[in-house]
Amino acid sequence: MNTHFLHEILNPKSIAIYGANNKGTSLASIQLMNIIISGFEGKIYPIHLKLETVMGYKAYKSITEVPETPDLVIIVLPPNIVNQIFRECGEKGVKRIILISGGFREMVGDRANTFTEEISEIAKKYGIRFIGPNCLGIYNSWIYPENDKKAMNTSIWENLERNKFSIASQSGTLSSHIFFDPENLDLGLGKSISVGNEANIDIVDCLEYYKDDENTEVIGLYIEELKRGKKFLELAKEITSQKPIIAIYVGGSKAGNRALQSHTGSMAGNAKIYDAVFKETGIIKTDYVQEFLDLAMILTRGIYPKGNRIGIITNSGGPGAMVANNAEKNGLVVPEFSESLQEQLKEVLPPIASFKNPVDCAFDTNLPYFYINLPEILMKSGEIDVLIQYGVVGFQDVMDNYLKYDKISPYADFQKQDYEKTEELVHKLIQPTLKNSKRFSIPIFYVNPQNFSTFWSKKLRENGAMLFKLWDRPISCIAKICEYVDYRRKHT
Amino acid sequence: MNTHFLHEILNPKSIAIYGANNKGTSLASIQLMNIIISGFEGKIYPIHLKLETVMGYKAYKSITEVPETPDLVIIVLPPNIVNQIFRECGEKGVKRIILISGGFREMVGDRANTFTEEISEIAKKYGIRFIGPNCLGIYNSWIYPENDKKAMNTSIWENLERNKFSIASQSGTLSSHIFFDPENLDLGLGKSISVGNEANIDIVDCLEYYKDDENTEVIGLYIEELKRGKKFLELAKEITSQKPIIAIYVGGSKAGNRALQSHTGSMAGNAKIYDAVFKETGIIKTDYVQEFLDLAMILTRGIYPKGNRIGIITNSGGPGAMVANNAEKNGLVVPEFSESLQEQLKEVLPPIASFKNPVDCAFDTNLPYFYINLPEILMKSGEIDVLIQYGVVGFQDVMDNYLKYDKISPYADFQKQDYEKTEELVHKLIQPTLKNSKRFSIPIFYVNPQNFSTFWSKKLRENGAMLFKLWDRPISCIAKICEYVDYRRKHT
Repeated sequence: MNTHFLHEILNPKSIAIYGANNKGTSLASIQLMNIIISGFEGKIYPIHLKLETVMGYKAYKSITEVPETPDLVIIVLPPNIVNQIFRECGEKGVKRIILISGGFREMVGDRANTFTEEISEIAKKYGIRFIGPNCLGIYNSWIYPENDKKAMNTSIWENLERNKFSIASQSGTLSSHIFFDPENLDLGLGKSISVGNEANIDIVDCLEYYKDDENTEVIGLYIEELKRGKKFLELAKEITSQKPIIAIYVGGSKAGNRALQSHTGSMAGNAKIYDAVFKETGIIKTDYVQEFLDLAMILTRGIYPKGNRIGIITNSGGPGAMVANNAEKNGLVVPEFSESLQEQLKEVLPPIASFKNPVDCAFDTNLPYFYINLPEILMKSGEIDVLIQYGVVGFQDVMDNYLKYDKISPYADFQKQDYEKTEELVHKLIQPTLKNSKRFSIPIFYVNPQNFSTFWSKKLRENGAMLFKLWDRPISCIAKICEYVDYRRKHT
Repeated sequence: MNTHFLHEILNPKSIAIYGANNKGTSLASIQLMNIIISGFEGKIYPIHLKLETVMGYKAYKSITEVPETPDLVIIVLPPNIVNQIFRECGEKGVKRIILISGGFREMVGDRANTFTEEISEIAKKYGIRFIGPNCLGIYNSWIYPENDKKAMNTSIWENLERNKFSIASQSGTLSSHIFFDPENLDLGLGKSISVGNEANIDIVDCLEYYKDDENTEVIGLYIEELKRGKKFLELAKEITSQKPIIAIYVGGSKAGNRALQSHTGSMAGNAKIYDAVFKETGIIKTDYVQEFLDLAMILTRGIYPKGNRIGIITNSGGPGAMVANNAEKNGLVVPEFSESLQEQLKEVLPPIASFKNPVDCAFDTNLPYFYINLPEILMKSGEIDVLIQYGVVGFQDVMDNYLKYDKISPYADFQKQDYEKTEELVHKLIQPTLKNSKRFSIPIFYVNPQNFSTFWSKKLRENGAMLFKLWDRPISCIAKICEYVDYRRKHT
């Protein structure tokens, strides 16, 4: 049983919440609604001076009246009354608080700093550990290990698919709102902690917790400032030999630093120092949220390439050439295949095809070859470490589309696809290759420019394929993952 | 009346097509179906040795039997019979051909080159101009100027929204399949020409045509090789002083060149030479399709920034800081606002807000201020050239979502949004700012991480807002557009 104080905050059995009402317009109300709809099974005690009930739960005038000492207290109230509430919570025996409210350190002026000092002292006196202030709270899809549909969730619109990706972020948006469009994301979430101003709990605490957490395999960080640099460095080094860490660091630019000052009150550091820290600790660095999400998506699959040689299968020359070109620009290798491998490919491909890498199957590929045999030949060859496959996917979806038109359907000599059979087919086509991908430790990336909600795209994704609409995005991620693999080989 | 031969190819009144049947499995059949469903109003003459009808159209055994000389012939047949067909077309008086078939120059061996030589000679003899071989044909949403729902379309799944973006591409995928997901693209298309191997018509011909085409305002190119470098350079220089050109060049890497060799048979050049050509001609260069599409989307709006100073409005600190940081990394300026401008902002913003740039409105922004007043103050200030706005958008969509849950709806003291009123509201909020954007020539970028099909996102886009799900993508585009604007100022 994990006894880290963050584990307790993420897995409460009872919660008291300040600031929520029934109107839904306040942040506290939104957070309470999130807790309710995400399936929290424990007790909920809204604290409200006037209301009898909040969202159907009996409300209490103060924490003193609550019939038990709640495992966790969430506070979303103006800063000037927070110290009083902290005191009352301390008296009640509360040990864990999430302080959502802003208006502390990030505000200019002595008074604000006094607020932070006051609550810090109270927390110390009563042995309280708290997240915040100026944060959006937590997400934990592992609160009920036997039920992956429920979560402890203060901050995200709807529950995400459960996985072993865990976030610690100095931005609430980065810990939650980037998951607003799960349909087009293909990435779930395990745990997320919005640490805010870090008056008491910081990113280093989160790393300590995630390090030994069996439900965390990939860690994502958003950093504006590190308060405990040395400890961070030691810990990160220890972790990256086991679990990859992806980090966005914002700072170093004039405007960036100005933004940080008003955001969390951080005094941002020198970007070069952070770059050096990331390099020394094997942290995968990115400046872009999309890449942050893509890296997480790829790494949570747990299939690490052994080297940086890319194999490309395509049924269109342009995308093949672009992948090859950008791969080399990113420091990856697109090797020309050996003659014996080319001979093997010639046996299964039409004469119009190209065999050197990229393998260009042209338009008339048959599906089992495209999905099973070709990838298998390349994976078994020992000549590649990563595979990118463009095309074919969803061709039947295109054909179905034509049948919607009156000018086509009466004359067309072809049938709408049998969706049940196609579902089976996709399963049969994709599973052997995903098994090979694991067996040879060669990640495979599928690219299909169609909408993710088309039938083939949906089925490929349901079967576990990593699918992208364009071939642009995976390349830089692969390059960064290869660098990490290289680091890890040297440091374990 | 435009008399360029490409104008004729893109605007035929009658078409003969070789290779199509009713089974739909051949490329020719797909192209014929595209022509039919996209709303072509002219005559269609399928040529087929055996079939009586193809997709409901009377079929002819040969071009000789067709009752008129078609304006355009499309051929999708094996290369070894194409020369015979070219001859027959020549005898019939055909002057314009699209040769889709592959298997010419890109195939290794003398025979293949002979094919190209043979058809080139025949074309010369009969005065035929032809696109291809090894291409996907054309798209023209301007064929019926009075009807923007119809197009001449051999290559794209469904018609796109008509605009003034025109493509010439040595990759068929780049000229068509990148438009497979219009819902998430927000970019229409005017004209597109897949030039293939360029045996007769090349990218320079396309540039000549687009230069004087009143329905082309932005040009997109995909280049693997330039056959007429000097002419390209002259022409590009002339064009970019009036119309922006966006180009992807693939070549220069070992694997890239190998891919090109098998794709269109190009002997790729030195990437440095191409970079120099692009720089000298003011062509906006990109390596990524997503950026290619984003640049086109932004440029077709026709609002060019006058400089490179970015204003940022956000209701979340993290995204604001990231935009600021990445903007500076891309060579853009995020100026600290003057004291007088900060005073103006203080008057309209809550005290918790930040005024320096980024402007962080915190959580409780009211909509007219966020959408109208704040942007107006910044645009009028003369202190910014581009505006990026993160947040707020779609908040009511989030609230509606809660009402779907039985555990919320009976207790919630708020109503589902009135969609009719919201539609009006979005219109009222967005139109004054879009007018200001034009008036001050300051492009404005909205960012909302929600799915594009949510109500607010849809309405914003319908109202003409440039909307992105993440703040990553616009930055590098803005930097490239600012460079182009700078080039144009110096060269006109």
